[in-house]
Amino acid sequence: MTNLADLADLIPIQVWDGVVARRVQGERLTVAVVELAPNAIVPEHRHANEQCGLVIEGGVTFRIGDETRKLGPGGTWRIIGDTPHSVVTGPAGAVVIDVFTPARDDWEDRPIVGSTASPVEPLWPHQR
Amino acid sequence: MTNLADLADLIPIQVWDGVVARRVQGERLTVAVVELAPNAIVPEHRHANEQCGLVIEGGVTFRIGDETRKLGPGGTWRIIGDTPHSVVTGPAGAVVIDVFTPARDDWEDRPIVGSTASPVEPLWPHQR
Repeated sequence: MTNLADLADLIPIQVWDGVVARRVQGERLTVAVVELAPNAIVPEHRHANEQCGLVIEGGVTFRIGDETRKLGPGGTWRIIGDTPHSVVTGPAGAVVIDVFTPARDDWEDRPIVGSTASPVEPLWPHQR
Repeated sequence: MTNLADLADLIPIQVWDGVVARRVQGERLTVAVVELAPNAIVPEHRHANEQCGLVIEGGVTFRIGDETRKLGPGGTWRIIGDTPHSVVTGPAGAVVIDVFTPARDDWEDRPIVGSTASPVEPLWPHQR
């Protein structure tokens, strides 16, 4: 496995309905570039992995425990392990970075989007 | 400490010459939005923290061990702990995301850029 790769060469997986991720997978880290469709809903869930991230483009409404906030590009989150959280997008959808430790090995069961024969291009970055 | 914050509200620190970072600091993670000036040089170094990241805009030449690659937006890296690595930017500089586990507590000694009275705006995102 190479340690230097372009996002477009990483295999996209379907994490939730309307939510696609490409991952840099370390030994102790997962860094995911996550595309959320317009009006996507990530229902409340929790996991032992600590999760931090930020919006690259578009917007989300993020809830962590009792805190709720609308975030645009540059909006950040910090989710200590096992804290319930949920996300919804607006009509523009969003591209975000989500980072986890330990690495999200439980995503290995998620289906691949597209195929090697017809790869799906990342929504971001726009210029290649 | 809030768990939902805008990048512009995070305190910028000077990590290296020509390298400024704003951090989402978790218990086990540091997610840093890092601005590298044009022709910046991050000399070869290593740390026990695992580090992954990607380019948001601009470009870098990244070296990890014996691998070297030019990366533009969407270019990613994965640095297992204690692997030597270095970075240089071109004339456009770069904005990148760098993620570490364990959290980079050793950056606590880095000087703050600007002051509360005259905050320095992030280079990215461009629209506020």
